[in-house]
Amino acid sequence: MGSKLKRLAILGSTGSIGRQTLDIVRGFPDRLRVVGLAAGGNTALLAQQIEEFKPKCVAVESAQARDGLRRCGCELTTADEMAARPDVDLVVIAISGMAGLKPTLAAIRAKKKLALATKEALVVAGSIVTAEAKKHNVQIMPIDSEPSAIWQCLQGEDKSVRRLILTASGGPFRKLSPKELDAVTPQQALAHPTWNMGPKVTIDSATLMNKGFEAIELSRLFDTPIENIDVVIHPQSIIHSMVEFADGSVKAQLSIPDMRFPIQYAIFHPKRMPNAGLPRLDFLNIKGGNALTFESPDTDKFPCLSMAFEASGKGGTWPAVLSAADEVAVDRFLKGKIRFTDIPSIISGALGAHRGISDPSLDDILAADAWAREKAAG
Amino acid sequence: MGSKLKRLAILGSTGSIGRQTLDIVRGFPDRLRVVGLAAGGNTALLAQQIEEFKPKCVAVESAQARDGLRRCGCELTTADEMAARPDVDLVVIAISGMAGLKPTLAAIRAKKKLALATKEALVVAGSIVTAEAKKHNVQIMPIDSEPSAIWQCLQGEDKSVRRLILTASGGPFRKLSPKELDAVTPQQALAHPTWNMGPKVTIDSATLMNKGFEAIELSRLFDTPIENIDVVIHPQSIIHSMVEFADGSVKAQLSIPDMRFPIQYAIFHPKRMPNAGLPRLDFLNIKGGNALTFESPDTDKFPCLSMAFEASGKGGTWPAVLSAADEVAVDRFLKGKIRFTDIPSIISGALGAHRGISDPSLDDILAADAWAREKAAG
Repeated sequence: MGSKLKRLAILGSTGSIGRQTLDIVRGFPDRLRVVGLAAGGNTALLAQQIEEFKPKCVAVESAQARDGLRRCGCELTTADEMAARPDVDLVVIAISGMAGLKPTLAAIRAKKKLALATKEALVVAGSIVTAEAKKHNVQIMPIDSEPSAIWQCLQGEDKSVRRLILTASGGPFRKLSPKELDAVTPQQALAHPTWNMGPKVTIDSATLMNKGFEAIELSRLFDTPIENIDVVIHPQSIIHSMVEFADGSVKAQLSIPDMRFPIQYAIFHPKRMPNAGLPRLDFLNIKGGNALTFESPDTDKFPCLSMAFEASGKGGTWPAVLSAADEVAVDRFLKGKIRFTDIPSIISGALGAHRGISDPSLDDILAADAWAREKAAG
Repeated sequence: MGSKLKRLAILGSTGSIGRQTLDIVRGFPDRLRVVGLAAGGNTALLAQQIEEFKPKCVAVESAQARDGLRRCGCELTTADEMAARPDVDLVVIAISGMAGLKPTLAAIRAKKKLALATKEALVVAGSIVTAEAKKHNVQIMPIDSEPSAIWQCLQGEDKSVRRLILTASGGPFRKLSPKELDAVTPQQALAHPTWNMGPKVTIDSATLMNKGFEAIELSRLFDTPIENIDVVIHPQSIIHSMVEFADGSVKAQLSIPDMRFPIQYAIFHPKRMPNAGLPRLDFLNIKGGNALTFESPDTDKFPCLSMAFEASGKGGTWPAVLSAADEVAVDRFLKGKIRFTDIPSIISGALGAHRGISDPSLDDILAADAWAREKAAG
């Protein structure tokens, strides 16, 4: 490789993070090269991406999709193999859900630079992923605004951290009454005020479960006890998170909310590259009244947040149950089968019935995941 | 020295910064030792400090004060000699005004760790001080909230800075009309809303000249063109300043306003030490409405700010004239001889009449300083 050229494998290239990663690649033709693209079902978009970025290899899940790509001129491979290829420098994992776990472990074991957007890998199997990363001396670079903010605030610091302050937009239903929450429809929940994301994450944002997952992610990424992580509602989503250090001084990372910031930061870390395509923050013109405000999260109205903290505190297989039950509950809500407020009840039911295993193997975790899915399916 | 014990010389120990530095020393009896104290006229307080901290040496300006200290049991020395003593590890320079310049240079030439609160050294003779610091490989550690915030935000970054965002409380007269400004009394001006400081700095805060000096200081400390420094009014004084990096990401440093934060940070840099005596920032309880707000400075009402930027842009002897004329004008205002709004007029008059020298020697600077004082005396 040229010393300046980074060769990327982008796993989950047709999703929201994948597409925005390709947007960053587009801006740095001399610095970034796409070697591999892996996608799920959206083969039409994948075909366009292949046309534009001319990767050496592609991976898709279904045999049918694979057949459709026979004549694309690329090697056909699997996500796991792609993540470990010798001609790949940096693996971006943006596959949603547990499907991101195996390629994450493959990239770590191949000692690749790893930019990870898939929360589930750290939430569900965090102990295993971080142990593997430590063993292979791989730094997991987060692709998400909040963990990236914490990571940026920790640059050059000696880790004397008192607490991490995780900010949250509060979601679209922050001001609804419990009764109004009962009546929320999937359509209402999918209209997130600040971030444009996939449906699962959008619902998780509305229940604050997403913030709970992020807290678990932070505790794994930065080896911080969950009780040293505070969640603060910050409706403007300008401060993406903060670190309070041992001396009481606080550092914050700020920007216009745009996922391309953490994507670009992870890709070029520790360098910061000028990018005229990214929006600039104007402190004299902050949306909604030119003020940055803060509120306490209402965990009575949004119990998913407390459940995540509790599951994280218990550790073992508990976060896997939390995540799996949530996935099923959100799916049922999106299909119109349950109410918005049933989501936390279903997860709580699964957590309450679970017999946890501490220090689990990957098989234990996958078993807990399967058990929780069945339980939450009702 | 023990590897953990830092031996301090505190120059200007009876002033506001000096006293707060000793408050930090008090909190770390096993880590910090006072070797020398230098003070001006307040010999009563100095005697108390000698009693408590038992320094090896002291320095005072007047012969009379020296006589009073004959029996204190300490070596009598000068500030310059103290700054260069072999048994001193860290020199804190908190002497106000140009009197801080010579000991600053003495500390740099003796390759001491240098924590600098005296803005004048960098504003007036910044080119000389920074050139000496570079030559002797000494890092100047700022003791003031704003430059310390910038310094903290730059830790671990590769200096790819787009702009520095210098925050300002806006002073007590932010909302006065031009006519009301005319009528401001010294007593009103001395009642600063946020920071408890000496009278000169307090008036400079009210005219925004202090912010102008800080901008010049930042440009020197961080080798940043003055046009890449923006001033933003932030009345809560929680965000102490920010850095916008090349990628558009912004980092901020925050705390309750308390000068002991930057003092402690400079003393222990790069370590952050727990200090239960320092106040904690509670984002759910921010004074004045739980919001961080931002405004544009009004340079028509507060022309000192623009004058400082202009003087900095011209460089050479101009900042010396700015500072000297300001010192005289503020003194005349405090003595009730001129109006508040005469302060910028006097400074502007001196700057307008000055024939600047670029790349000046220290003598050129001192001559410009003397010339400006005479000019401003009216």
